[in-house]
This record gives sequence, structure tokens and C-alpha cells, in this order.
Amino acid sequence: MINKEEIWDLFKSIFPIYRTLLGKGFNDSLDEISKTIPLTNIYEVESGQSSGSWKIPDEWIIHNAWIADLDGNKIIDFKENQFHIWQYSISTDEIISHEELIKKIAIGDEDCIPLVVTYYSKRWGFSVSANQFEKLNKDQYRVYVESEFRAGKLQIGEIFLKGRSSKEILIDAVLSCNSLANNLSGVLGAVFIAKLISQTSNHYYSYRILFSPETIGPISLFHHFPSLFKNVQGGFNLINLADKNALNYKTSRYPTLVDDTVEYTLKQFDKDATIFKYDVLTGTCGNEKAYNSLGIEVPVGALRRSILCSYPEYDTSKDDFGFIDKSKFFESLDILTQLIQNIELNRYYKHTFIGEPFLTGYGLFPKIEKDSDRIPYDYLMGFTNGELSLLDIVKLSNQPLQSFFEPLRLMVEKELLKEI
Amino acid sequence: MINKEEIWDLFKSIFPIYRTLLGKGFNDSLDEISKTIPLTNIYEVESGQSSGSWKIPDEWIIHNAWIADLDGNKIIDFKENQFHIWQYSISTDEIISHEELIKKIAIGDEDCIPLVVTYYSKRWGFSVSANQFEKLNKDQYRVYVESEFRAGKLQIGEIFLKGRSSKEILIDAVLSCNSLANNLSGVLGAVFIAKLISQTSNHYYSYRILFSPETIGPISLFHHFPSLFKNVQGGFNLINLADKNALNYKTSRYPTLVDDTVEYTLKQFDKDATIFKYDVLTGTCGNEKAYNSLGIEVPVGALRRSILCSYPEYDTSKDDFGFIDKSKFFESLDILTQLIQNIELNRYYKHTFIGEPFLTGYGLFPKIEKDSDRIPYDYLMGFTNGELSLLDIVKLSNQPLQSFFEPLRLMVEKELLKEI
Amino acid sequence: MINKEEIWDLFKSIFPIYRTLLGKGFNDSLDEISKTIPLTNIYEVESGQSSGSWKIPDEWIIHNAWIADLDGNKIIDFKENQFHIWQYSISTDEIISHEELIKKIAIGDEDCIPLVVTYYSKRWGFSVSANQFEKLNKDQYRVYVESEFRAGKLQIGEIFLKGRSSKEILIDAVLSCNSLANNLSGVLGAVFIAKLISQTSNHYYSYRILFSPETIGPISLFHHFPSLFKNVQGGFNLINLADKNALNYKTSRYPTLVDDTVEYTLKQFDKDATIFKYDVLTGTCGNEKAYNSLGIEVPVGALRRSILCSYPEYDTSKDDFGFIDKSKFFESLDILTQLIQNIELNRYYKHTFIGEPFLTGYGLFPKIEKDSDRIPYDYLMGFTNGELSLLDIVKLSNQPLQSFFEPLRLMVEKELLKEI
Repeated sequence: MINKEEIWDLFKSIFPIYRTLLGKGFNDSLDEISKTIPLTNIYEVESGQSSGSWKIPDEWIIHNAWIADLDGNKIIDFKENQFHIWQYSISTDEIISHEELIKKIAIGDEDCIPLVVTYYSKRWGFSVSANQFEKLNKDQYRVYVESEFRAGKLQIGEIFLKGRSSKEILIDAVLSCNSLANNLSGVLGAVFIAKLISQTSNHYYSYRILFSPETIGPISLFHHFPSLFKNVQGGFNLINLADKNALNYKTSRYPTLVDDTVEYTLKQFDKDATIFKYDVLTGTCGNEKAYNSLGIEVPVGALRRSILCSYPEYDTSKDDFGFIDKSKFFESLDILTQLIQNIELNRYYKHTFIGEPFLTGYGLFPKIEKDSDRIPYDYLMGFTNGELSLLDIVKLSNQPLQSFFEPLRLMVEKELLKEI
Repeated sequence: MINKEEIWDLFKSIFPIYRTLLGKGFNDSLDEISKTIPLTNIYEVESGQSSGSWKIPDEWIIHNAWIADLDGNKIIDFKENQFHIWQYSISTDEIISHEELIKKIAIGDEDCIPLVVTYYSKRWGFSVSANQFEKLNKDQYRVYVESEFRAGKLQIGEIFLKGRSSKEILIDAVLSCNSLANNLSGVLGAVFIAKLISQTSNHYYSYRILFSPETIGPISLFHHFPSLFKNVQGGFNLINLADKNALNYKTSRYPTLVDDTVEYTLKQFDKDATIFKYDVLTGTCGNEKAYNSLGIEVPVGALRRSILCSYPEYDTSKDDFGFIDKSKFFESLDILTQLIQNIELNRYYKHTFIGEPFLTGYGLFPKIEKDSDRIPYDYLMGFTNGELSLLDIVKLSNQPLQSFFEPLRLMVEKELLKEI
Repeated sequence: MINKEEIWDLFKSIFPIYRTLLGKGFNDSLDEISKTIPLTNIYEVESGQSSGSWKIPDEWIIHNAWIADLDGNKIIDFKENQFHIWQYSISTDEIISHEELIKKIAIGDEDCIPLVVTYYSKRWGFSVSANQFEKLNKDQYRVYVESEFRAGKLQIGEIFLKGRSSKEILIDAVLSCNSLANNLSGVLGAVFIAKLISQTSNHYYSYRILFSPETIGPISLFHHFPSLFKNVQGGFNLINLADKNALNYKTSRYPTLVDDTVEYTLKQFDKDATIFKYDVLTGTCGNEKAYNSLGIEVPVGALRRSILCSYPEYDTSKDDFGFIDKSKFFESLDILTQLIQNIELNRYYKHTFIGEPFLTGYGLFPKIEKDSDRIPYDYLMGFTNGELSLLDIVKLSNQPLQSFFEPLRLMVEKELLKEI
């Protein structure tokens, strides 16, 4: 059993670090993770390198950023709230009219300060809440931004856990966003899975768990380490695991066993759990869009409670520890535990017997105490043609997956079935 | 823009010509068409030639045909109405009892005179309306038919319009029926399409537009010019474009992109437009049955308003300019215009990029003014795997096809997509 | 026409024979069958031989078996009712307490004595009705069983009827159960089919009709005569043809033409006939489970009225001639007659013509007296692409299968269609 409180403590220690696509904040966050479970690798791509039609930006360091009235009173100050400055803002020190200033301000609802990033435009800007915006009523302001750009390295942290099989499950979580709690909860879900697998002896799949910058992370990995994903059978991106909505899932582009298993597992917990088919609409997608994008096509779904952009606190300063719900986050971890157990089992098995086997001869009948105990044996004997997954067979039987665990184990042990 | 009135004038000039399967009337009709748009070819097969199990009949010329009472009063006269004589009637001059006569008379409802053709039987017969039939109450009549048979040539007129691609769209219309206005409207629809394409620079598909005798036209073409159809990707037969019913479509035997496009286009105009699956029932089929017949299997659908045989005026003297509706015919031409535009675009495209492209780098973001402008780009980037047609992708997006026109053009121009 | 009364007489003469998996009773039953129609073969496998994970048991002969009170009054006696002794009971002669005795007794409802078999356990046991069980109220009883085990031969009787084609239809019926009338009715259904085919000149399919021991019959055949089933296209197991329920069908593992034909034929008689997809649940399966089992996979469905285990008389002494219904059994034979006729015709046909044929030229039009007569010709001409079965085409037409019999015959005769 994993200590969920230990995961929660890690959550709290990573949350306040000021992160962006690359640089110290991202690196410090990986360091924090490695205190709970060691990373096995950090992939690096240098600033200026191309990845398809993308280019790795420089590292950006923000030293100071404020808006003051002409009396020198700071109205908006990055040091008060890290969301105030648009990430990748360039330096400036200027007197600016109210009219010009508001063109460079993003305004959130009520007291939400929105996150804005402008990696590829040489500009500056500030984010404020609606309440703060109302107070900007002078004719002129002084704007001061002191930032620094320098060559750095895009980093993707990895925990690779080798299983009996070289077939891989890919788990991805975006680590590049700054202090957004619900968003960051996916990283903790991935850490939890890593801990869980690392304590599981003899797991079947190999697990490749990645902590990555958004979009450019997967794209750079694919272009610079093209063979990395060649054994991936399926997987998912984790995000928004700590709000109060029910879990839902968007499948990968082409259906995988993992997609089937997530659907089955979510419906075990909530029969109305929603499963969305693969989609690409901007604003509803996270890293799974890059993984599935044409030419890359690594099959990764998206597991989350609330959908991206679907709630007012999304990508704002209000996505903090006051917004998220600890018990819902822990419930997510419990579902992940069940999900990993199901993923490990939902594979293809093939009969070794020729014709209906004589179960008594294999010593299996003593295990069958009542008629319903026999049903999983009937269905495993009847349908393990190597083309139906365990869950396909379970669904044919109308029995719960759990009732198949022991019969499957025994039939594999007796070599009536082989794993394929 | 095509002048629809010019098409309407051609309609009126072809209508009165007395046509049958082959011969002068058919040839004169082709001549009329070529005054509006030149034919590129006339395929010919001589009388007596075999086409599979069919044989090209002789040309038939009717000089005179009447029924008179014994006082010499002509009661029924071909010169009054061309529908009175069954096409391919043999000559006769005989006194005949009322009882014998009525065995050789086809009777239409009220004042409809039905069209009867008997290409392959050596017999004669007359068609009359129910009103006329009532007046045939004498005991004996004199019947006079003076007709002539001679070796001729079956003709199929063609307008071939070469596109960027050697892939062809086949448009067919039956020209062999005599003065049936709704029936003939298909020929004018085909002429309209020919004009439209001929004024379109750089069209993708090549268009093969045929004016053909019914059934034996396509069958003879296939047997005598077997390579003619080898590049046909899809197409349709046009008929009954001028009555008051909504347009409907019967697909070709195996689904084609053209079938999809017709369905989509009709539903743009009328969301309840009916799409019928391929069927072969006698009485509901025109030339599309011959095109799709086994061993030929050229994929041709049937686009029409009323279905063949479904209205009392069908194949009678009452299918005239009083029956059809000019505004409905013009509406048909407008829908054909949209349909051809959609056919040109509804093809397969394949991404050239590897992984989600950086749209800003291609200068495409300035084109995206509001969030919904981005949707077609998302879907074109997301699904141009070469196996989904443009319309497949459009349907996934739940956006109108029109919103894809400009994004598609730009992405092809920027070489993010290639046509396949 | 087959004399159904002759089948009924055979039914009555086989019923009382005391049968088990192998031995004299089974052999005598085959002899009885061969008096009505000669067997072409008896396959034999010796006791002790392996068949996959199964082993052929010895022959078992029961000489005497009773339970008596200590005064020597026989309370339960095998000689009164053959169901009283569990088949394959070992010998014993012992005084036993009431408490111990009831552990070795199977109790049926009311006056049903259940059939129990224990081929692979060295034990003894008795079956009694609930009414008899109530009377077993003494403290002690004497139990006497005198049985004999000796090496024998498992037998499978076969009637093989060669057709024009080497493609085979497999008909199977279990013969190993002792006097169970509804169960045994399947054997008589198979005999009926054998008679029917043997009187049909020029039948297309070859028919392999088997009278087999339950489960181990098909499994042994496959292991010891592995090429026997290589030409089987489809077939079914027959059982429970004489009770009052409607016929229903469970398909074979992978759909076959025979499965389609059974479904169509049952629905001709009763449009609500139930068709079950292939399933493997113990208690609902007969020999079809062994035929379809993985590694064997001979496509055999199950045709029956009541489903196995679904009625209180099932596998008890009450499944006798008082339980079954002669008129229902005869109705089953009538449906089998229609079914075989349909199986013979529901095959793939391919057009020889290139393009729509000129039917008049083949002399087929005189056969077409009214418009609806033409429909089967339209559909046979339109869809005989070699990939649609006759029934697929019939269903497209919405016409009854019967209306296709004569058009199909004529079109094959005129060589417009060929059998494939």
C-alpha cells in the first residue's frame, strides 16, 4: 500500500515552485519528485533545437515585474502573485497611457488572475483579476519588467519500470504549468502510479512515466528520441484529478486495450462515467493531443475529472489548494490502483489445449464450489482464442472481472492458457 | 455563372424532337446540344452488333399511323400526337374488329397517352388516353401503319473535360425517350454541368458526360469500348429534375466519395432529403442499373426529384412543359452547382508534417480571428491520415463544410497537406 | 416422403434400451437404428486411450443395485427403475447409517428420479424421488451394488451420404443417455434427416450424420480421426425435439451459411423464434460445445425446443413418453424437411453474364406473368456477385425464399448463374 499522505505532502511541496516550460523551476520540481521516487532518466533538448516545425525556446528568468502609478505606488506586482506577469515577457520600463496599457492586460473573472504564456512572441503583458482591473483608473502608469533570456535545456523527467514484457504503458503528466493545483494533481497521480508499480513484484508491462513540458515535451521527445515510444501499447495523460467532478476519459486515436480497461474500470466505480472518443478540439486537449498527432501517433488517452477549460478557476490563480478536494484526490488514487491492476490483467491469452479440456484432470474442480464459480472457467475455456482480450471475455460472461482473477491465475499456472 | 435561361431555351428546342433508341431524332438532339456546348465525341455501334446478350436493333422510321372508322374518319392519328404509335411498330393496313383492335391498344389514365416501345418484338400497337378509348365504339376499324426499318447506328454523345487528375466523374443522362419533359430535364442538367466545368479553370477531376440511349447505351459502350470507364471514381445518372418533389438519391452499388458528397449536399439543402441504398427493382431504375450491373460495375448513382414510375404523368404525353416547374428545375441547377463544388473538394488529403505542426510558424494564425475559426485547422491537422475523406473529417467536427474551404486551401498551399 | 410413423416406432424401440457412454446398450441402439437406415461406419476408440486431456473410461456393467432395510425389504431397486443407480457406480455391500446414506443419494423433485453419472470417480450412489426419499426413515440400511468394469470401445455411429459437392453438413445427436425421451428425440431427428437425404437424388452437400456419446464422442473423434471434419461447412446438434416449446437455435462459434439458414427457416414457421449467439455456459450446452471448443472449432449449432436443464423433467425418469408430444415431434420433422431444402439452396452463386442480361433472349420472359414475378430475377441478376448467399439476396428483395426457387433453377439451367 502506498501512503497517500506522502503523495499529498509532495503535492504541497511542488505546488509553490514557479515553473514554466524549461529552466530552474521545472528542474527543481523534478528534484522534489525524485525525493519520493528516483527518476531513472532526464531527457534534454537544447534551446534553439528544432522539433518538427517547433523550436525549443530559450530559458526565461523573471526578476521583477510591476505596474505602478506615477507616484510610485505599485498597483500590480509579480512578487505579490506570480500569475501577474505573462510568462516569456520581455523587459521594459516605460510610462504608458491607460488606453495602451489595457491592450496588454488579460483580465480574469472576479478575483481570478489568468495564466498567460507567450513563448514565441517577443512582447510583454500582465494578468489581473476583474476586481484589480477596476482599480486601474489613472491616465498613465509606469510599467517595469526585468526579465532575462538565455540558452537552456528542455527537460522531460522519466521513471522507467521494467516489467516481464517489453510492452510498455505510457503515463504522462504535464509539469510545466506554474502553481495550478488541479492541473498539477496529474503529476502526483503519475508519481503514485510509479510508487505502486515499483512495489509490485513481477508486473507484466513495463511502465514509462513521464513528467513533461506541455505539447513541446512529447513532440521533442519523438523527434530527438524517435525509438523511445516504439513499444508503447497504450497509456494516458493524467490531469485534474482533485476537483469534485466524476472521472471521465477520452480515448486515444485508435482503440487500445488500455482504453478498454480505463472505460471498464471507471464504469465499475460509476456506471455513468463518460467516455469520449478521440477528439482534437483546441482547449479540450492536453499532452494527449501531441502524442496522438499525425506522424507521432502514440496511443495516449486523457484521464481527468473536470475537462480542460470547463471551469472558471481553470488556468488561473484560483486553481489552488482552496479549490481542490483532498478526499476526491485520494479517491482518484484508489481508482488508479484498481486501474493498474486491471491493465496488468486485461491482455490476450491463448488456449494450449486442443478441444474442451477435462478440468477435473487439472485439479481445478475442487476450486469450483457452486455453479456460478464455474462460469469464469467456462468463458476462459470457451473464448481464449488469442483475439479476445480478458475484458472482451468478461463482458461476454456478464460476470464481474474480479471473479476471473483466480480462475485466470490458476489456468495460466496449469499452463492451460498462455500469455501472448 | 452559367446562364440558366440559355439551358431552358435548349430544353425547349430539344423537347419536341421525335426520338427513339437510335436514328435521326437522337442525332438531331445531339446536334442541338452541341450548339450550346460542343460534344467531344460520338460513340457509335452498328445495328445488328452484339453487346453481351443484347443486339443493337435497326433504325425505325415511322411515316404514317392511324386508326380510322370504315367511313374513313381518322379517330387516332400519329400526326396528332407522337405517343399514339408504339415505337418500333411494323407496317400494316387492315380492317380489324373492335375486339381484336383493343388487344393492341395501351390505355392511359384520363387524357394521358402512354409511351410504349417494343424494340425486340415484330408487332404493332397504338396508345390512347382513357377518354379517347371510350370513343372507340364501332364494330370495325381500319388500321394503317407505314414504317421502315433499316440498318443504323446506336449513338452515345460525350463531352469529356480533362482535369488535373485522370480520375473521372461520370455523368449520364438518357436522351432516347421522345417528348417527355421531366425525363429530358436530366439531359439539360448534364449540359449545365458540362458548361459549369468547362468554365472552371484547374478542376481536379476529369468529367465524362454522356447522353445515351436507355440501358443498351451503357451496355454497348462497355462491350465495345471496354477501357472507357476504367478511371471512373463515381458519378450519377440525372433524370426528373423539374417536378415539384424534393431531390433524392440512390447510391451506386459500392459506396463512393461521390455518393457521400451527394448525400451531404442534398442534406445541406433539405435535411430530410432521402438517400436510398442501391437497388435493382425494375420500374425504379434508369441507366444506373446498367452501369452497376454485374460484370460492368461502374459506380453510378441516380439523382432525381420524383422516382421513376411514381407519378401518373410518368412516360406519358402529359409529361410536358405544363407538368414541369421552371423554378424547381432552376433550383436543381443551383444544387448541381454546389454539388460539383463539393465533389471537387471531398477527396483524401494526407499530412506532410510529423506531429502537431506549429501553425504560427506557417503564418496561419493571423487567419484565425476567433476560436471557432481554429476548428477546421484542428480537424484538418488532426485527421488527414489519408483514410478519411474531407467530408468524413467535416462530420467529425460538426462544422459546416464551407468553413473548411479556406483552411484547406491554405494548408494545401503551405504544403502542410497533400492531395492523394 | 418419409413415413413419420416409422420414425416414431424406431423411437419407441430405442427408448427402453439401457445406455451409457459405451458398451452393449449403446451398441444395441446403433443396431436398432441400422434396421431403419444402414450405418455407413462405426468409429471406435478403446478404453484407456487418451483424447486430449480426456481418457476413454472402461465399459461399465451393472448387475444389481438396491437399498434394503435390515429386515431385507428392498426399498430402492435398480430393477424397478434404471435411474436409481448412478452410472459407473462401483460395487459395494455394506450396512450404512441413515446419516451416511443420504450423502450418497441424489433427490429429484416430487416423483422425478434424476440421472447421475460419475464416469471418472470411483464411488457409488443412488438417485431417488423426493417422495421416495421421505420414506427412507430408518436408522440403518443395507446397500448392495454389483457392477463390473472392463475394457471396451467408445463407439460413434455414422451415416455418410455423399453429395455432388465434397462440402459437408454435420448433423450430430447424443445417443449415450439412457431412457430420456425428449433428449433421445434428437437421435430420431437425425435418423429422419438421413432418410430424407438418402431419398433425395442429386443433393448438393455431403451429409455426415453422427450418433455419438456426449462430449467425449466429438472430442475423441477429432483426436483419433483428425481429418474427419475438414470439409464441414456447418451443421447442428439435435436434441429436445418433442416437447411443447417453440424451436430455438444457438449458432456455432463463427457464423455459417447453415446458421443463417436455420434462423431464416425457424422464422418462417414462427417469426418470434429465438436465435441465441454462441455461448458456452455449462448446463445449457450439449455436444455443440465440444465441436466448437477451441482447437477443434467445427461449426455446429444447437437446434432444440426446450433448452437443456430448463424444465423439471430434464435428465430425470420423468422425461418419458408421457412427457413428450408426438404432434410436436412430427412438427419438428416437418421443419427439418424445410430446413434441409433451404440448406441445399442457400449457397453462393455467381453471374456468368457481363452486364445486365437480355432476359427475353434466354426465353425467361414467358415465365414472368406479373410484375412481382420479375422481382426474384431482378435480385438474382443484381446481386449474384459470389459474396452474397441466396438468403442474403432474398432478404434484400423482401420477397419470400420460395419465390426464388424456380427463377434460381432456371437461371442455373440457362447458365446465367453458376454454383460456387
